[in-house]
Amino acid sequence: TATYKICLLPGDGIGPEIIAEGVKVLDAVGAKFDTAFEYTEALLGGIAIDETGEALPEETLRAANASDAVLLAAVGGPKWDTTDPEKPRPEQGLLGIRKELGLYANLRPVRIFKALADASTLKSEIIDGVDLLIVRELTGGLYFGARERFYDEEGCGVDGAAGQRAYDTLEYREYEIERIVHHAFETARKRRSRVHSIDKANVLETSRLWREVAHRVAAEYPDVEIADMLVDNAAMQLINNPAQFDVVVTENMFGDILSDEASMLTGSLGMLASASLGDGVALYEPSHGSAPDIAGKGIANPLAQILSVEMMLRYSFNMQDAADAVAAAVEAVLDEGWRTGDIAGAETPADKIVGTVAMGDLVVSKL
Amino acid sequence: TATYKICLLPGDGIGPEIIAEGVKVLDAVGAKFDTAFEYTEALLGGIAIDETGEALPEETLRAANASDAVLLAAVGGPKWDTTDPEKPRPEQGLLGIRKELGLYANLRPVRIFKALADASTLKSEIIDGVDLLIVRELTGGLYFGARERFYDEEGCGVDGAAGQRAYDTLEYREYEIERIVHHAFETARKRRSRVHSIDKANVLETSRLWREVAHRVAAEYPDVEIADMLVDNAAMQLINNPAQFDVVVTENMFGDILSDEASMLTGSLGMLASASLGDGVALYEPSHGSAPDIAGKGIANPLAQILSVEMMLRYSFNMQDAADAVAAAVEAVLDEGWRTGDIAGAETPADKIVGTVAMGDLVVSKL
Ligand SMILES: CC(C)[C@H](C(=O)O)[C@@H](O)C(=O)O
Ligand SMILES: CC(C)[C@H](C(=O)O)[C@@H](O)C(=O)O
Repeated sequence: TATYKICLLPGDGIGPEIIAEGVKVLDAVGAKFDTAFEYTEALLGGIAIDETGEALPEETLRAANASDAVLLAAVGGPKWDTTDPEKPRPEQGLLGIRKELGLYANLRPVRIFKALADASTLKSEIIDGVDLLIVRELTGGLYFGARERFYDEEGCGVDGAAGQRAYDTLEYREYEIERIVHHAFETARKRRSRVHSIDKANVLETSRLWREVAHRVAAEYPDVEIADMLVDNAAMQLINNPAQFDVVVTENMFGDILSDEASMLTGSLGMLASASLGDGVALYEPSHGSAPDIAGKGIANPLAQILSVEMMLRYSFNMQDAADAVAAAVEAVLDEGWRTGDIAGAETPADKIVGTVAMGDLVVSKL
Repeated sequence: TATYKICLLPGDGIGPEIIAEGVKVLDAVGAKFDTAFEYTEALLGGIAIDETGEALPEETLRAANASDAVLLAAVGGPKWDTTDPEKPRPEQGLLGIRKELGLYANLRPVRIFKALADASTLKSEIIDGVDLLIVRELTGGLYFGARERFYDEEGCGVDGAAGQRAYDTLEYREYEIERIVHHAFETARKRRSRVHSIDKANVLETSRLWREVAHRVAAEYPDVEIADMLVDNAAMQLINNPAQFDVVVTENMFGDILSDEASMLTGSLGMLASASLGDGVALYEPSHGSAPDIAGKGIANPLAQILSVEMMLRYSFNMQDAADAVAAAVEAVLDEGWRTGDIAGAETPADKIVGTVAMGDLVVSKL
């Protein structure tokens, strides 16, 4: 029996509720595929701030590093919102763990579940056949460059008055671009062999470096097509003709914006998972947030968390059959008409609307 | 008879073709509303590079400054695409003129033309009633901060190897945020009194400063509602529920991405105009680009250019009746079924599809 150690990070809001369903599915997979999963739980985000004063305690990092994979639910909430640079913020936990574990490649697949196609705000002929993967650089750019705020005695008014100034730095090094673009091309080979590289080369120096490096890497993959696209155009094309995309690779901030935009093509953010990979232990999480407004009510949709377990099985444990089984189970539950509130339509019968725990049970029953 | 001097910047690609239709409409407006428009033409973008070696020649700036308003068509094209930091690029002309004229407020209205509602890739119930205005900060942020590329002997490989590095700086000063947010609130007062301020305050220091200043300004407008929204969420909400927005204010790069995304809600970029305002002479241009692929064919859609004339009449010359007349003329032409190729649907009869000049004539005939 293979044994894998999984570090659980329930985080904030609906986090604890949905991660429990992820674990339930892992346990069922373990029983069926003769694998043992061992869990350790650690603090991240708002709850970590409350209990330790830090969003990413040393102990959490140790637990993550000692595991074979990390399953994260969600962090953040209005309780910890602040613009005071001195105060800790939940997101620092998320950003910190990405950086510390070297998780430079964030994979966010966007696919349409047939049973939920109606949920999209886009016309069905537009989202038909959409199956794209955003590969977002996750440990560089504006997220991790130098930043500062200061009071300037003169340079800050139209006429040189005093005032506040702030800056953030968007920085990239050649190897950071190289490795993420390689990742995108390797992945594209296993898909439809098309890569869109998104930048703003008509304005940004980092984008011009990005574009040069991307083309140098692309030359090593003559079987994969590369197309450059400016980020503003990409934001349009995702709405105009999303089916044109296979793999989309881009820097951190553009990836944040475009992957959230792309996630809305499905009309159901509650269904989308992500994987953050580096050279060591990887991290898996839903694409949605901590939804503090519905926390503790037992109505959160656990399917994105469950699909992040699917990605874990695929990428960290190379358990393709188990991963396929989880994906099929989710699909089967949806096909039978079961819905959590967020993905229920106007015509969903009331007795088909279920809570978090029941949805987890349904998926397990199909495994 | 009032006299206004207009500086024309035809630029590249379809630019010269569409600006001619803008001038045609201005002349018709002049005749009808007893106003004289005088034109000077100047070089900007690729054509300026070809003829003078610079994207924004000194003379162009002088001509713009000596005018009462600037009408720009479009700049850029593959001919001048380069990632070589030493070479001039057409966009430098656009960015340069924005900066030199102090055009800090870019206004991009997104509204749905009833006759073209079908062109949207979004479901009709979603775009029904969409009428939003993006107010984008246009002379700060990543577009104008320090940037550099250099070769680093050590800090550039995973293991300290040599390689290239590049950075761009996202910088904002208090007064820059203050004046654009004021602009947004003033405008919101004349609309539906709702402002969404978009930032990434959970990551960027500039965004935290932005949010603080935005709320301080908002306090001066108790009659206008303010809501903060993170940029990734905004990218989702524009697809999910665009009708919730009235005025959207944001920094330069976020504004570039979100305004292009929002423009796609209409399904017809060829219909959207923009105004760039500062404390002096203002500039008006279509939201679309120079479309080099169809340049010189006489098939480009001139309506965004004509609607940028509408904005010029409104904002620079305070000719509200004339502006309303232009808007009504465009609407009337569309209602009669006339289309350029880009906005023709599958059911548009062939004899209703017209070229650039004919479309301009049609609008004039309705004035
Ligand atoms: C919470 C936030 C810092 C984070 C990000 O911007 O990366 C989130 O939006 C995401 O995409 O995972
Ligand atoms: C051409 C480019 C530099 C410009 C920008 O990014 O501002 C364009 O996309 C725009 O929105 O006007």
